[in-house]
Amino acid sequence: MTRPINFGAGPSALPESVLKEAANGLLDFEGTGIGIAEISHRSKQFTAFVKKTETLIRTQLNVPSTHEILFTQGGGTGQFSAVVYNFLARHRLLHPDDGEPVLDYVVTGSWSKKASEEARRLVGGSRVHIAGDGRREGKTFTRIPGHSEYSFSPNAALIYYCENETVDGVQFSHDPSAPASFPFDRLPTTAALLPLVADYSSSFMSRPIPRLADHALIFAGAQKNIGPAGLTILIVRQDCLVDVDAAAALGAPPVPISMAYNVIADAASLYNTPSVLALYISGLVLDRSLNLGGVQYYEQLNRRKADKVYAALRDGEARAIFRPKVEHGSRSWMNVVFDVLGDGAEARFIAGAEQLNMKALKGHRSVGGIRVSLYNAITEEQTDRLVAYIRQFT
Amino acid sequence: MTRPINFGAGPSALPESVLKEAANGLLDFEGTGIGIAEISHRSKQFTAFVKKTETLIRTQLNVPSTHEILFTQGGGTGQFSAVVYNFLARHRLLHPDDGEPVLDYVVTGSWSKKASEEARRLVGGSRVHIAGDGRREGKTFTRIPGHSEYSFSPNAALIYYCENETVDGVQFSHDPSAPASFPFDRLPTTAALLPLVADYSSSFMSRPIPRLADHALIFAGAQKNIGPAGLTILIVRQDCLVDVDAAAALGAPPVPISMAYNVIADAASLYNTPSVLALYISGLVLDRSLNLGGVQYYEQLNRRKADKVYAALRDGEARAIFRPKVEHGSRSWMNVVFDVLGDGAEARFIAGAEQLNMKALKGHRSVGGIRVSLYNAITEEQTDRLVAYIRQFT
Repeated sequence: MTRPINFGAGPSALPESVLKEAANGLLDFEGTGIGIAEISHRSKQFTAFVKKTETLIRTQLNVPSTHEILFTQGGGTGQFSAVVYNFLARHRLLHPDDGEPVLDYVVTGSWSKKASEEARRLVGGSRVHIAGDGRREGKTFTRIPGHSEYSFSPNAALIYYCENETVDGVQFSHDPSAPASFPFDRLPTTAALLPLVADYSSSFMSRPIPRLADHALIFAGAQKNIGPAGLTILIVRQDCLVDVDAAAALGAPPVPISMAYNVIADAASLYNTPSVLALYISGLVLDRSLNLGGVQYYEQLNRRKADKVYAALRDGEARAIFRPKVEHGSRSWMNVVFDVLGDGAEARFIAGAEQLNMKALKGHRSVGGIRVSLYNAITEEQTDRLVAYIRQFT
Repeated sequence: MTRPINFGAGPSALPESVLKEAANGLLDFEGTGIGIAEISHRSKQFTAFVKKTETLIRTQLNVPSTHEILFTQGGGTGQFSAVVYNFLARHRLLHPDDGEPVLDYVVTGSWSKKASEEARRLVGGSRVHIAGDGRREGKTFTRIPGHSEYSFSPNAALIYYCENETVDGVQFSHDPSAPASFPFDRLPTTAALLPLVADYSSSFMSRPIPRLADHALIFAGAQKNIGPAGLTILIVRQDCLVDVDAAAALGAPPVPISMAYNVIADAASLYNTPSVLALYISGLVLDRSLNLGGVQYYEQLNRRKADKVYAALRDGEARAIFRPKVEHGSRSWMNVVFDVLGDGAEARFIAGAEQLNMKALKGHRSVGGIRVSLYNAITEEQTDRLVAYIRQFT
């Protein structure tokens, strides 16, 4: 049987070769005779696998030695809370007299909005400052703000943005001269090491990360480009691995132990039992990725895939049928969102795709429309099949 | 190749038939053509699977309709924090004027000790009351305290115990007349619905849960008896699903959103993407368990297995070689811990077992000695092989 093409937004398609390898690993992990879900997370085989997976990320993203790579659980939603706790602790130790610092959030879609709402729940609304907002007149998220629209606080405990908004299909440009790039040069310069936090959940490993070394924390759930749900990856600058208990003694909110970055780092990501299967499959995917040419390979591939789909939507007669939801320049390579115009046309588009074995094209329930997710595991050939379908759809 | 016998304490052995089924599911989940790690967690197939898994637990443990069954991430360590937050919120709503309630912990081993330490981190040591302690003269954990040794607080926000201590091999008896049973009848009667919390991580689904309905919360990581690491199961009484934000408005500590029981329940365990693979394999194991006769079947099997191993350790000449670490009556069915007496005897015991393809018998690094974990997936025949080895070891 030919596998369907899964354009789902996450959990999402994984390479078939990796799934076959993982199926073997379920019964026998690296010749131990014990399955990957059964072996001790403290065994030498598994700890070596964790180390190797860390190196696969470090090599491909060129992560400098100033940053640790950690693995944890809880996904982006867990990190929405964890960043608040850890960066409040860090701020308290750096500025013991600044008892109620502000947290800066750049809001460009549903996920950064959710993250800012969690900060409001934990510290109160008056301390959450929206430093940038992509909405025009408070409406839907359709763009990255222009550089002149940001207003960062001088001494925020954290500065937060989401690189790719999975629901809204809005993504920062990686061309530093583009209006939709992240405004690194407008960040406050008062602090030498800025508390800059980026949610890379839905674009992690899809292309290089610009100015990675300038980030305090980059986090990502695995379930888009690199593996099954259940694994969260952290790239943390070492000055952010603070003694959270010392900070609490000075008045910062105590940090739940499973969320404390210093605790996770001190235990080399094995403070408690990790999500072994998700970590294992992610390791296999990352190994395959390196062999293909790493994030540079995927950058070229993903650019071509996205260009082809966006071009098809605007080509000739298609213009009258399809309407991209996001403004030019802010469009995501990972999640292409558009409306199909005309009564019943959207349902017809989805049904026709299903007949061609192309699945999961429905947009997120909160925004509707069509969403095509083009994560790493979607091949160019699969993209071409979708493009052909778009071109012939009338 | 014959698979080794994996006596590891967790992650631990899983039934081979389930691993084979899961290997197929990685490529094709229930005939969808999409793998279980790739399908949307909001698809009708996956949500039906979650519902079915819930029913498999409800049926086998006879969970009453007063209690919800929820799935989350983060393991026992995550719950050490979550119980504190959720039960402080509940207490605040029930007793708005009791601003600094006490938390009662029964400490019978490393894990309940860790849980009490996390409570200390989050609320301060003065509010954590040790309501029972198994140590004699503050030494190692070798027993469950006698009923007369407990001192519960009259209006604690939570009363916490760990049913089976994986590291120390100490477990509560399920015979209500036994001295090592949990002292249900000594709990305060002032509150109609007691905030009684039990960590069942390493004995969940190994036998029925006595007085389940009297618990406010039972939680368990999956990675012992029912599945891979990454899944946490909660059985929560409905009065514990409180509006944590309303409690925070009254002064309770805010609850990280991914830990809030009411949020998880309102979203039917899908507030954020769950650990799909761990949930899937656990569902397969639970289905198999039901077909075999449920927890009643495992109760009989696990009793026989534990009896055989403990008997072998005390039989004839074995008495001079092996010394169980835990006092009679408090010995765990799941984790049998003992010392092998004599210079180098322990290393010899482990090496000899390895030659017979019996693995992971080393005790936890904090206590040393030997630990034999006899979770559900260990068969009676595998136990017999270990028993034969113990009997011939000199």
